[in-house]
Amino acid sequence: MSQAPMSRGQQMSNDERMACIALGVLVEPGSRELGLLVRAVGPQEALARATGGYGVSPALAGAVRTRMQAAGVDGTAGVAAQLAERMGELAERLGARIITAADEEWPHDLDDLVHASRDGHMQRRDTDPPLCLWLRGPLRLAETLERSVSVVGARAVTGYGGYVASEFGYGLAERGWTIVSGGALGVDVTVHRGALAGGGPTVAVLACGIDRAYPAANAVVLEQIGVEGLLLTEWPPGTLPYKTRFLTRNRVIAAATRGTVMVEAGSRSGARSTLGYARMLRRSAMVVPGPINSAMSVGCHIELRQPGTVLVTRVEEIIEEIGSIGELAVPIKGAGRPEDTLDPLQARILDAVRPRRAMSAEQIAAVAGVSGREARRGLPLLEELGFVVSSSEGYRLKSPPRGPLGEEES
Amino acid sequence: MSQAPMSRGQQMSNDERMACIALGVLVEPGSRELGLLVRAVGPQEALARATGGYGVSPALAGAVRTRMQAAGVDGTAGVAAQLAERMGELAERLGARIITAADEEWPHDLDDLVHASRDGHMQRRDTDPPLCLWLRGPLRLAETLERSVSVVGARAVTGYGGYVASEFGYGLAERGWTIVSGGALGVDVTVHRGALAGGGPTVAVLACGIDRAYPAANAVVLEQIGVEGLLLTEWPPGTLPYKTRFLTRNRVIAAATRGTVMVEAGSRSGARSTLGYARMLRRSAMVVPGPINSAMSVGCHIELRQPGTVLVTRVEEIIEEIGSIGELAVPIKGAGRPEDTLDPLQARILDAVRPRRAMSAEQIAAVAGVSGREARRGLPLLEELGFVVSSSEGYRLKSPPRGPLGEEES
Repeated sequence: MSQAPMSRGQQMSNDERMACIALGVLVEPGSRELGLLVRAVGPQEALARATGGYGVSPALAGAVRTRMQAAGVDGTAGVAAQLAERMGELAERLGARIITAADEEWPHDLDDLVHASRDGHMQRRDTDPPLCLWLRGPLRLAETLERSVSVVGARAVTGYGGYVASEFGYGLAERGWTIVSGGALGVDVTVHRGALAGGGPTVAVLACGIDRAYPAANAVVLEQIGVEGLLLTEWPPGTLPYKTRFLTRNRVIAAATRGTVMVEAGSRSGARSTLGYARMLRRSAMVVPGPINSAMSVGCHIELRQPGTVLVTRVEEIIEEIGSIGELAVPIKGAGRPEDTLDPLQARILDAVRPRRAMSAEQIAAVAGVSGREARRGLPLLEELGFVVSSSEGYRLKSPPRGPLGEEES
Repeated sequence: MSQAPMSRGQQMSNDERMACIALGVLVEPGSRELGLLVRAVGPQEALARATGGYGVSPALAGAVRTRMQAAGVDGTAGVAAQLAERMGELAERLGARIITAADEEWPHDLDDLVHASRDGHMQRRDTDPPLCLWLRGPLRLAETLERSVSVVGARAVTGYGGYVASEFGYGLAERGWTIVSGGALGVDVTVHRGALAGGGPTVAVLACGIDRAYPAANAVVLEQIGVEGLLLTEWPPGTLPYKTRFLTRNRVIAAATRGTVMVEAGSRSGARSTLGYARMLRRSAMVVPGPINSAMSVGCHIELRQPGTVLVTRVEEIIEEIGSIGELAVPIKGAGRPEDTLDPLQARILDAVRPRRAMSAEQIAAVAGVSGREARRGLPLLEELGFVVSSSEGYRLKSPPRGPLGEEES
């Protein structure tokens, strides 16, 4: 099928690497047509065809032509070298680096996007894996993503969602998990901050150039992530974030991690697209519920009503989903009560004993609906266990007096 | 197998009816041993054996003996007549009535408890159907339960749970559904009140005698239900509510209705047992989510993590679960925006148009990553649709200016 396909473990030449970087500038990321072509003929030949305008669709050829003109590069020869050199200088100036599938830190989990795209599961056409990534930060990407989970959600987060995002970010970081999110306002920035506070690695996947602090309100924390964690983007410097780019970016957040947790989301939230990618890519799709009268949980509940979505309420439950075998969440139990240890017959006898009025074993048996023999055998045991006291008048409850009904247990 | 089994559609003699009423007094409801015996030999013979102390377990014989002594009835003969007459007088005095499977208003859906019990699905042994029911109120029981749903939950309801219970009670009543609940504090009484306000029938299934206003705080609303709806119990007058009786009662709430909705529940809430019965009886088991940091939603989320539980957020979703085919909930959609109607290519072009700075079609194409031809064809269409305006300098966005990012949509 292919002359020079890019695949895991295969050596990529420097020319191929440069072609990937150039294609990352000339073609809007995610293009399925380009992805198929690169996998069939290799990045150099794909670049040659796209820039030469042959063997590709008129739309792709035209799109590349307008980008070449805007970038002022000569289409006849050396496009890869020209653009790769320019990008390399730009990266150096910005303290960033560009990686391709040739690099050791390339996260090959992104390859799964090929299959999802090929399977036709995706509704969108721009879901192909990135050809190159821009990175800024001290961590090695592939290694950092090994134990990673994405946490995404609404920009217009409520106090509740903010609490949850902060708790999850901190708790997952504390347990050695990398938090991936989109660096946006609301849930994203809160979970990034939680991860930073928890001393864990965090990766912000941007939908703009690595030189853009978007949104401006997050400039400080994005800078901090670039110093302590990783900033990551498919787009070359100078690229502005657009609505369609956020949706394209979301596939990377889902594919790069073992699972996606959606914290709060309105019915139209873009976080739902990330969750949809996670589900399609057979990653864990996890959702935090909220009040049904909160607009910011409507999207969460719509998703939770879909098959294949897991409701999570605690960090332990998230790790149970995405962690190794044996990382099971301890079930939640209410505080035990001494009477919980009683068998059903004993419980029924104890239910019939009154706090103040002493009753005979026969009277208690009649109230409980058990035989006199059962009551005569059971009551001394209940006395021994400290539930009842006996006197010449019969049995009554030992203090503290119990009401006829244990609150919340019927 | 049986000489005189009780089953749907079969005529029951008056003697059999009296035997059922007597057994309802002498044996604590739910007894599987008694249920099996009644189905095998009929209620009269079962009563004869239980009171005579032969052909039954010593425990059952002993339990019946203590109850007979307490009731002061003679065990040698005429127990059925003695007790049935006494209970009939009591019912009349209390404005109540006693029904058995012989009566037209008997809800035969309760028979399902036989199978659940026989299948060994039940963890508890006292899950057999009731042999008789005490009723107070103007409605016919079977008919009232035809389109019914139970709504149950915590006594220690929060403001959130109270809001949900009230909304659901009112909304379901308004749409012609009967609300069944347990008459308790918290969720129960709130959903009963919602149903009363919505002008719908409501049934309170008690775990004590029909003469008991338990809990006292609900005395007024229970009285109202006895006048406008139905009070229902398996226990004879004078019976006090015990913890074990609430759990026994819960099987009736689940079996009598098409589905159970759990609104709020702590981890140890008894409402979880009702939901468990619903699931075992193949009724819909529906749960309302809540904030994960609310103790009163912990039980809800534990249940929602079980297979076979449906998350519900609206009355329409409940009706979709339990109603007839075609009663589907309309999906929730956010407010549409004009640009939602654009195809992906148009959306990408529109994304690249700036609010103030006019750009040529070629410039826009380069930013969007589309061909010049696509931009030259798409921009006039976007102008026609009112999204962009053109001038001699090129295209810019028509007011109102859009930010680079539609809030909540990326």
